Amino acid sequence: MLSDIHSVQVELGDRSYPIYIGSGLLSRGDIYREHIPANQVLVVTNDMVAPLYLDQVLKALAKFRHASVILPDGEQNKTLGVWNLIFDTLMKERFNRQCTILALGGGVVGDMAGFAAACYQRGVNFVQAPTTLLSQVDSSVGGKTGVNHPAGKNMIGAFYQPRCVIIDIQSLDTLEDRQYSAGLAEIIKYGLINDGEFFCWLEGNMERLLDRDREALVYAIDRSCRDKASVVALDETEQGKRALLNLGHTFGHAIETGMGYGEWLHGEAVAAGICMAGELSRRLGWLGEAEQKRIIALIQRACLPTTPPRQMRRTDFLSLMGIDKKVQNGRIRLVLMRSLGDAVVTDDFDPQALNSMLDGYGRAL
Amino acid sequence: MLSDIHSVQVELGDRSYPIYIGSGLLSRGDIYREHIPANQVLVVTNDMVAPLYLDQVLKALAKFRHASVILPDGEQNKTLGVWNLIFDTLMKERFNRQCTILALGGGVVGDMAGFAAACYQRGVNFVQAPTTLLSQVDSSVGGKTGVNHPAGKNMIGAFYQPRCVIIDIQSLDTLEDRQYSAGLAEIIKYGLINDGEFFCWLEGNMERLLDRDREALVYAIDRSCRDKASVVALDETEQGKRALLNLGHTFGHAIETGMGYGEWLHGEAVAAGICMAGELSRRLGWLGEAEQKRIIALIQRACLPTTPPRQMRRTDFLSLMGIDKKVQNGRIRLVLMRSLGDAVVTDDFDPQALNSMLDGYGRAL
Repeated sequence: MLSDIHSVQVELGDRSYPIYIGSGLLSRGDIYREHIPANQVLVVTNDMVAPLYLDQVLKALAKFRHASVILPDGEQNKTLGVWNLIFDTLMKERFNRQCTILALGGGVVGDMAGFAAACYQRGVNFVQAPTTLLSQVDSSVGGKTGVNHPAGKNMIGAFYQPRCVIIDIQSLDTLEDRQYSAGLAEIIKYGLINDGEFFCWLEGNMERLLDRDREALVYAIDRSCRDKASVVALDETEQGKRALLNLGHTFGHAIETGMGYGEWLHGEAVAAGICMAGELSRRLGWLGEAEQKRIIALIQRACLPTTPPRQMRRTDFLSLMGIDKKVQNGRIRLVLMRSLGDAVVTDDFDPQALNSMLDGYGRAL
Repeated sequence: MLSDIHSVQVELGDRSYPIYIGSGLLSRGDIYREHIPANQVLVVTNDMVAPLYLDQVLKALAKFRHASVILPDGEQNKTLGVWNLIFDTLMKERFNRQCTILALGGGVVGDMAGFAAACYQRGVNFVQAPTTLLSQVDSSVGGKTGVNHPAGKNMIGAFYQPRCVIIDIQSLDTLEDRQYSAGLAEIIKYGLINDGEFFCWLEGNMERLLDRDREALVYAIDRSCRDKASVVALDETEQGKRALLNLGHTFGHAIETGMGYGEWLHGEAVAAGICMAGELSRRLGWLGEAEQKRIIALIQRACLPTTPPRQMRRTDFLSLMGIDKKVQNGRIRLVLMRSLGDAVVTDDFDPQALNSMLDGYGRAL
């Protein structure tokens, strides 16, 4: 671990790793040299990110034998077929079991590159350099990797931890506003799960974040990573507590699948999903009306949707949620809220309340 | 674990599991009930095995909600594309994270089903019912799963342990002779790696094994599984000792890839590969001529090839071995023999001896 760079340590026993957060880190050759154990490196990126940052990264990797593979951008390309392009390059380059795969890009690139690292020769080294706000605060922490199946998101994958995560906040300068807001959805989520103080901080600092103020950004990313790391450390393979991180995701995944991958951004679907979880929590009498309003207001200020897409009906949601990973023995488990900063995973609620909540959005048409 | 059935325990901490060995076990509902924790079971099998054993297994699984997927038989179908058929069925059946995947078939079915179990929703339960001699003594022990890449065998995969392995020796009654002999290659391998006494037993009992004598079979399978389990327990993820199990496999994989998957059976390629490792070991002065002859004689009695295919040249081997998983930093590591029952993993040998050995087979044309 390099001590002169701001970092968060993810504690997972012998799979622990640091998350470096700072400006200009993609060019820091010393990070790569510290965390890449042998001489072969494959950079996996996409056609949006490559023109912006690939040269800079390859230059910093000059010491290594490096190659790169440029995947087509977008959630709709997170498929087994596109994933296989990574193996084609690894085999063409004759990379061995000591090689390292470096993910340079957003969540889709990170998930596919990480899953390839988990599977190439049954596991090679992995380094993650997330370049979107969403991947910096979410997918780069915790080791979830995978691809989509046409019938469900992230259905094929592995738990696989990186050697380190490199968060270069300079890479956010080129991120379009819509993608940036999508990242804010996950940041708000951490406040709601177990960090009410952070939620209040976000209420006080949303405009600074929207202005991409560097100090506020480092603070929000650091705190999000710590919040997530603390949950992941308790439950690496999602047997229990980790499911809290899915706040807004059961509804969100249904929206993404129902609308077709790529139509709604993941963060946008999660934002609407959080509001739906809030609405259900209020209907169950768990969350006060004032608290619910604060959630909706903050999500609105982050320029994110607060209701599901108009064309999706109750039956669409129930059908799509029926094959979600969070379904146990036919009962639907959801992450709901007891207050701001206190989420719970539960299947102990009146299913009629769920139906009414979904119908409620339908009636608003 | 069921105590009334003969079993071998594979010791891997909290991933330990029993291997049951006996006659008629595929119909034993009590084994399934003991090791399948929830109610959804997908049987993965192939079009050779399904007509013979699928009904019998599904009947024994009557208590469970079960489905099956029948893959095309053969090593040439061990691809990402065919692998995806398993996910299509899992998704169609809406199986959840508590489901179990049961592999019914040989090594190809076991490797693909196990890899699907490792990846479906990032990991579900796995039970293995190997129906070929080779898979019973080899691929069912140790948790290696995966598929082939067009440029290399087993290049995409995972280490993933089953809940239990069910070896029904009745299933060998329908195995054709060529496949049966292929299994004997791996059995002979265990004698050569670290069990000289077993090698001698095989020299004394090869005819009984060729007659498929049940008592001899149970003994040979049991001892092979124990030998393999003892190596795997030392080194689950192949950082060191486990590589011993690759005796004959570096040359063997080159033969399989060079000839096209499915031309040479895996066990046949390994048999020739063991003889090549023996020839190199003798040239290096590590193995005596008499010992080498005993190896060739036993492999010949098992009706297996003792030399590589005529059309493969030194350059073919070196090129194909260059992308083998056992290559570290450009040096070729091989499993060689110091005596019968004492194999070593080493890159500390004269590369010229390797070249001469490969040329030696070429000159014999």
